[in-house]
Amino acid sequence: MSPESARPVTVAVLGGGTVGAQVAKLLTDRDTDLHIRMGTSLKLTQVAVRDLNKERPIPAALLSDDAMAVATSGADIVVELIGGIEPAKSLILAAIKSGSSVVTANKALLASDGASLYAAAEAEGVDIFFEASVAGAIPIVRLLQESLSGDHVTKIMGIVNGTTNYILTRMDEDGASFADALAEAQALGYAEADPRADVEGHDAASKAAILAELAFHTHVTREDVYCEGIAHITKSDISAAKSLGCVIKLLAVAERVDDDRGVIVRVHPTMVPREHPLASVRDAFNAVFIEAEAAGELMFYGRGAGGAPTASAVLGDVVVAARNRLTGSTGWGESADVQLPVLSISEAQTCYYVNLVVADQPGALASIAKAFADSGVSIQVVRQDGHGDGAGLIVCTHRSTDGALQDTVDRLRELSMVTAVVGVMRVEGEAGA
Amino acid sequence: MSPESARPVTVAVLGGGTVGAQVAKLLTDRDTDLHIRMGTSLKLTQVAVRDLNKERPIPAALLSDDAMAVATSGADIVVELIGGIEPAKSLILAAIKSGSSVVTANKALLASDGASLYAAAEAEGVDIFFEASVAGAIPIVRLLQESLSGDHVTKIMGIVNGTTNYILTRMDEDGASFADALAEAQALGYAEADPRADVEGHDAASKAAILAELAFHTHVTREDVYCEGIAHITKSDISAAKSLGCVIKLLAVAERVDDDRGVIVRVHPTMVPREHPLASVRDAFNAVFIEAEAAGELMFYGRGAGGAPTASAVLGDVVVAARNRLTGSTGWGESADVQLPVLSISEAQTCYYVNLVVADQPGALASIAKAFADSGVSIQVVRQDGHGDGAGLIVCTHRSTDGALQDTVDRLRELSMVTAVVGVMRVEGEAGA
Repeated sequence: MSPESARPVTVAVLGGGTVGAQVAKLLTDRDTDLHIRMGTSLKLTQVAVRDLNKERPIPAALLSDDAMAVATSGADIVVELIGGIEPAKSLILAAIKSGSSVVTANKALLASDGASLYAAAEAEGVDIFFEASVAGAIPIVRLLQESLSGDHVTKIMGIVNGTTNYILTRMDEDGASFADALAEAQALGYAEADPRADVEGHDAASKAAILAELAFHTHVTREDVYCEGIAHITKSDISAAKSLGCVIKLLAVAERVDDDRGVIVRVHPTMVPREHPLASVRDAFNAVFIEAEAAGELMFYGRGAGGAPTASAVLGDVVVAARNRLTGSTGWGESADVQLPVLSISEAQTCYYVNLVVADQPGALASIAKAFADSGVSIQVVRQDGHGDGAGLIVCTHRSTDGALQDTVDRLRELSMVTAVVGVMRVEGEAGA
Repeated sequence: MSPESARPVTVAVLGGGTVGAQVAKLLTDRDTDLHIRMGTSLKLTQVAVRDLNKERPIPAALLSDDAMAVATSGADIVVELIGGIEPAKSLILAAIKSGSSVVTANKALLASDGASLYAAAEAEGVDIFFEASVAGAIPIVRLLQESLSGDHVTKIMGIVNGTTNYILTRMDEDGASFADALAEAQALGYAEADPRADVEGHDAASKAAILAELAFHTHVTREDVYCEGIAHITKSDISAAKSLGCVIKLLAVAERVDDDRGVIVRVHPTMVPREHPLASVRDAFNAVFIEAEAAGELMFYGRGAGGAPTASAVLGDVVVAARNRLTGSTGWGESADVQLPVLSISEAQTCYYVNLVVADQPGALASIAKAFADSGVSIQVVRQDGHGDGAGLIVCTHRSTDGALQDTVDRLRELSMVTAVVGVMRVEGEAGA
């Protein structure tokens, strides 16, 4: 590519919020660098906003409140930062139909309708890039699409929601309750006034679907993802985790089962041994841990949210898309050509932690052990623990199917000597597990 | 790209050692996956080896002992896994001249003659990819070339040599001496019989040059890199590091100085606070920590060596190069268009740890403090420590230039009450430092 000959590449942005403003800023600040490296400039043509009168750090002359006109303006690249399903989907499809390449950070849309967007882009011969949709500044999408393209990913475990990781870090390090840690996260702007999308795991589940699709070349939507949030995590779970040498993380897990029989994708609070690399990911940071056949273990760590980190990922995509426009090629697109079946979580194999309050009566432990054995679950560790009322009992199992473990918990709840099942959690990342 | 229409992409490999055999194996094992995803097969045509009679897990029909004939056979992609400067350089240049794209893991060659290889590839319109040359399976090259292309990298700190990290881990965790830890690394195959390239830092320095060139778009060669090894690290340094809440790592550091005045690239043992993400990188693992203006802090962790992890990185490059051959495009190539001056380490700003044995005489501390002050270096912490002979004194400084710190050490050596300067080390990764 000869630096002299290239025309400017035009970029239109849909959405003038925090990320949109940062993208506009980076396009201006980095102009000289980008010009040197690409041989041309990226020219910001328009920014679509809802309210033209709101004050923003974007030149007023670039603003428009007609998003569809901006999307179909024929810019080389349309950056979608509105979020949600509609009107984002219609705008992206219209931009693609107009021949624009699209860069989006819209995880909810990709996790529900990704396949139709990828197909539309392929049909028009344009790029659709979405690095910023998962784990912010961590370039996990390009990594899975390109760097690991010659390898075979077997499992991904990600801390992909900064809000919940911040809350769990406060609970672990400061002994805060869930409610207090959530309030602190809200005060700091890490959590929304309505925190459900984060704390119930929905945000992480959308990202898990995107990661699973990339890793396993199989269409996975949000509906395919088992999802359990962190609102029920108690101080007792936190202290049990500590006593077991673990820390509790909300993990998004995507894995191949029995080589290629299928994939399972799940989001749930998880006990992780403190020596595992994911255990040291604190506060609002994100990290994605990958197991691949040849590469072995890989981990990628960085800021998962925020205007500047997200804008960094968006701009990386814009630069690659711009280069493709100049050379007349397109990037990898998404391939779901392997299309493995998506299996139920009941087939997932994990270890379990079960925290019980047990009435002090003879034969209690024998009955409890029988409940595990009757479901075919083998016990790894049993530990007595004080609970105030009655004796506390923490049981950790060997690997078993999630179905058998759920069955065990059902049996335990029916036992007369089990006063309460106060905590049940999956365990991941153990050596040899 | 239509899956039906594509022709097979031919791949010739130079070098039939551990990595070469793994690449051959992956090309065969992954054939179906690759075919589905690329719409064609990668066809291994030849493997050049030195000794045709040595037993190898590669079909004998593919072997040749005429490396130049294999390099110029007109394969779409030539993979160079011989290492060293010659004949690797002549073979790569001949392959490029024959119109082949090149994938190489040759850090020594890239760090000495990278510029001529990149120029040759650009002139011929072919790719030269080198993901496996730095940090094995960690896809740091593509990340710097593409994902961070819209951002501004300010600093890179990498643990890029697994041998030295293994040795330092044993010294930290088991209290081993350098000699014992080296012997253990040799017994396990982590260290060569002649370990100098690793323990003297030369391997890390080559990788530091490659990382600096990618991050700062500036030609950096091995000769530009300040380099200090780990053979002089003592048990006393290790225990001093522990007492300061640090761990000792051999870091490759590349940084911009005063925004764009220049870059400094250096490899040396470094004290890293235990809460820094790099501190938890144990054994033979590698990790690269990046600070970028918009993305913030990023870290990438994985296996830095070994046949399979290196082959994973090579094959990722092969797949991207193959795709480019099919679409008639090329990848990013290397841009040294910014071309910042490479400055001397004396201009680098770090904190220092100095470990002294001091004769027990009045006014000793005052004289020592004056030696720091006279060089313009400000003291952060002074700690008394037992050394057997005389009093031990550990001094940690605030950030200052390396030149001023070296000057301080020279002054200290001249003081009559300083019996010995037993340890001097730079400190990186401190909060606010």
